[in-house]
Amino acid sequence: MKATQYYGKQTFRVLEKEIESPREGEVRIKVAYVGVCGTDVHIYHGMMDKRVNIPETIGHEMSGVIDALGSGVTGFSVGDKVVVRPLDDRKVKASDKGYNHICEELKFIGIDSEGAMQQYWNVPAFTLHKLKESTDLKLAALIEPLSVATHDVRRSALKAGETAVVLGGGPIGLLVAMVAKEVGAQVIISEINPKRIEKARALGFDVVSPVEVDLVEYVKGKTENRRADVVFEVAGVQPALDIMCEIAGIRGRIVMVAIHGEKKPVDLFKFFWKELSLIGARVYEKEDYEKSIELITANELPFEAMITDVQPLSNIQSVFENIDSNPDGLKVLMDCQL
Amino acid sequence: MKATQYYGKQTFRVLEKEIESPREGEVRIKVAYVGVCGTDVHIYHGMMDKRVNIPETIGHEMSGVIDALGSGVTGFSVGDKVVVRPLDDRKVKASDKGYNHICEELKFIGIDSEGAMQQYWNVPAFTLHKLKESTDLKLAALIEPLSVATHDVRRSALKAGETAVVLGGGPIGLLVAMVAKEVGAQVIISEINPKRIEKARALGFDVVSPVEVDLVEYVKGKTENRRADVVFEVAGVQPALDIMCEIAGIRGRIVMVAIHGEKKPVDLFKFFWKELSLIGARVYEKEDYEKSIELITANELPFEAMITDVQPLSNIQSVFENIDSNPDGLKVLMDCQL
Ligand SMILES: NC(=O)c1ccc[n+]([C@@H]2O[C@H](COP(=O)([O-])OP(=O)(O)OC[C@H]3O[C@@H](n4cnc5c(N)ncnc54)[C@H](O)[C@@H]3O)[C@@H](O)[C@H]2O)c1
Ligand SMILES: NC(=O)c1ccc[n+]([C@@H]2O[C@H](COP(=O)([O-])OP(=O)(O)OC[C@H]3O[C@@H](n4cnc5c(N)ncnc54)[C@H](O)[C@@H]3O)[C@@H](O)[C@H]2O)c1
Ligand SMILES: [Zn+2]
Ligand SMILES: [Zn+2]
Repeated sequence: MKATQYYGKQTFRVLEKEIESPREGEVRIKVAYVGVCGTDVHIYHGMMDKRVNIPETIGHEMSGVIDALGSGVTGFSVGDKVVVRPLDDRKVKASDKGYNHICEELKFIGIDSEGAMQQYWNVPAFTLHKLKESTDLKLAALIEPLSVATHDVRRSALKAGETAVVLGGGPIGLLVAMVAKEVGAQVIISEINPKRIEKARALGFDVVSPVEVDLVEYVKGKTENRRADVVFEVAGVQPALDIMCEIAGIRGRIVMVAIHGEKKPVDLFKFFWKELSLIGARVYEKEDYEKSIELITANELPFEAMITDVQPLSNIQSVFENIDSNPDGLKVLMDCQL
Repeated sequence: MKATQYYGKQTFRVLEKEIESPREGEVRIKVAYVGVCGTDVHIYHGMMDKRVNIPETIGHEMSGVIDALGSGVTGFSVGDKVVVRPLDDRKVKASDKGYNHICEELKFIGIDSEGAMQQYWNVPAFTLHKLKESTDLKLAALIEPLSVATHDVRRSALKAGETAVVLGGGPIGLLVAMVAKEVGAQVIISEINPKRIEKARALGFDVVSPVEVDLVEYVKGKTENRRADVVFEVAGVQPALDIMCEIAGIRGRIVMVAIHGEKKPVDLFKFFWKELSLIGARVYEKEDYEKSIELITANELPFEAMITDVQPLSNIQSVFENIDSNPDGLKVLMDCQL
C-alpha cells in the first residue's frame, strides 16, 4: 500500500508499506479522502516537531470504508462507510470530570499518533462513526472540521433569532457561519482577505471587511443597537480580540475558537460592564459528530463549495507547497487511493 | 439636617441643610448607617471627578427607616426599615434585552446622583427593599456589598460539593467566600495581606498566601487534582489574572468581579485547552438583594466581623483619611444620625 510520512523540514515522502492486520479492538479502513487542516500545515512548517513523532504519517480529517475487523470488534462490518473521531481518551481520569474530549492526557490521533494520510489505516473501533451508504465520501471528509463548528455553536447556546458575528472567514469560520445560520440566527462574517470575502458572499453570507467598514456600527445597524448576541473568534489575531468585546452586546457570549499561543491583552472592563462571557471551545464531542453527520447526509448547506481542490495523495509534497502559496483556497482534499 | 458633600481634592464638608419633602414616587429615608465602599474611596481620591457632579453627597451602601412618603407611593409605610438598591434604570431601552441592572444608560445612585451620606435622603420608591422589623440596621448596611457577592455566586452557578477559589480577601472577596460556603462549596481564599489572612482564618476560612505557598499545588491537593470548579477574581491585579487560568480545572468557570481599568494579558490558550469560561459580573439584580436580605436576617454568617469600625457621619473627613492609612480594615460604617 501507499503511505506518506512527514520527515521534518517541510518534507513529505511517499513510500510503499505492508498492509497490516488490525489488532484486537481495531478496524482497518481503506481511506477515501483526507483533508488538509491548518494544524497539518503547522506540522509541515516544523512548528510541532516536538510533539510529532518524526517520521510520522499525519492527517485527521478523513472518510473511508471498513476493510477488515480486528478481533472483538462489534457493531461494524466490512464495507461500512465511516469517519474517525480522532480523539484517544483511553487515559481519562476522574479529575477530567467526564469531559473526555479535553481530558488532561488526551492523545490526538494523526498528531500524537499515526494518522490518515495513507491508503489503509488501522484505528481503534471506539473512534468510528458509521455513515449512511448514500453519503458522499468527499463531503464526509469535512465531518471533522464541521464538528469543530457544531461544537462551537453548541457551546455558544445560539438560538434562532439571535445575531452571531463570526470573526474570520477561513475554513473553520465559514463552517461556524453555516451551522449558525442553520440554527436560525442572523449571521455576519468579518474577514479581511478579499478573495475569501468574495467566496463567502457567493455562499450567500453577509460579509464585511473591518478595515473598510466600521464593524461596530455595522453590527449595531443590523441589530437595532443590540449588537451581537454571540461572537465567534475564529481569526486568531489581536484586532479580533479587540473588536470582539466591542461588538458583543449586553450579556453577549464570545466563543474562543482560535488558538492563541501567547497571552494577549483583553478588555476585561467590558466583561464586567456588559456581563459578557468568554467560552473556550476545543474540538468536539460525540454528539457534535452526530450532528455533523446529519448535516453532511442532508447536504443542504453549501459544503461542496468548501472543497477548493482534490489531489492524489501521491502529490502530497506539492499539495502542501501550493497551500502555502495560495492562502485563498479553503479545503484541499487528497484522494488516498491515487 | 446634617449632610456631607465631596468637594474634590480629598475634601468632604459637613453642612446643615433643609429637610426636603419627597416628590411624587419618592420616599424620604432617615438614614441609619452608611458603609464606605472602595468606589467611595476612589471618588475621595479624585479618580472619578469627571463622573461625580461636584459638590456631591455620595454613598450607596446604607440602611434606614422610612420617614415620609411622596404622593403615589404604595406598599410602604412610615417606620418601615428599608435598604436602597441604588440602580436607576429608568432609561432602559429594548437593546438592553431586559438586563436592567446593566442597561446602557444606567445611573448609579450615590455616584451619578445624590447619595446616602446625609441624615435624610429622598429616593425613588422603586429602589427600595423592605426589611423585617427585627433586622439589625448595622448589618443591613452590608446588604449592598453582600448583593454583589450573591450576584457573583449566582452568575457562577456554583453547586454544593464544588470547589471555589476566591482570589483576594478584601471586603467583597470575603463576602463572596461566605456566600460560596453557604452554597455548600469547598472554599479557598488567596490573599497576600497578612492582617487580612489572619482575619479570614479567624472567620474559619481556608486561606493561603500565593507568595508563600504554590497555590496551584495547594488547590490540586484539596481537589484530588481536579483544581477549582469556580474561581472568583476579586483582587484586581495581574498575578490574579495569571493564576486564575492555572487553578481552574477542566470546564472551570472564572467570575470576573474585579474592575480592570485597562486591557490586561490573559492566557486565552488555557480557555481553549480546558474549555474554561470567563463570566463578567456587575452589581446585582432584584433577586440578589432578596437573597442577601434573607442571609442578613438569618444572621448565621460572620457578618458582624466584617464591620471593623463605626464612626459618626460628622467625622467623614477623618474616616476617609484613616481608611487610607489602614488597609487592613474591612468595612467602616458611619452613623448618619451622629
Ligand atoms: N478550537 C478548536 O478545537 C480548533 C479547531 C480547529 C481550528 N482552530 C483554530 O481556529 C482558527 C481558524 O482556523 P482556520 O483553519 O479557519 O484558520 P485560517 O487562518 O484559515 O482563518 C482565519 C481567517 O481570519 C482572517 N482574518 C485575519 N485577520 C482578521 C481580522 N482582523 N478580522 C477578520 N478576519 C481576519 C484571515 O484572513 C483568515 O481567513 C485557528 O486559530 C485555528 O487554530 C481551533
Ligand atoms: N463587579 C462589581 O459590581 C463590583 C462591585 C464592587 C467591587 N468590585 C471590585 O471588586 C474588587 C474587590 O473589591 P474590594 O473592595 O474587596 O477591594 P480590596 O482592594 O479591598 O480587595 C482586594 C484584595 O486583594 C488582595 N490581593 C492583592 N494582590 C493579590 C494577589 N496577588 N493574590 C491574592 N490577593 C491579592 C489585596 O490584599 C486585597 O485584600 C475591586 O476590583 C472592586 O472594584 C466589583
Ligand atoms: Zn483539524
Ligand atoms: Zn459599593
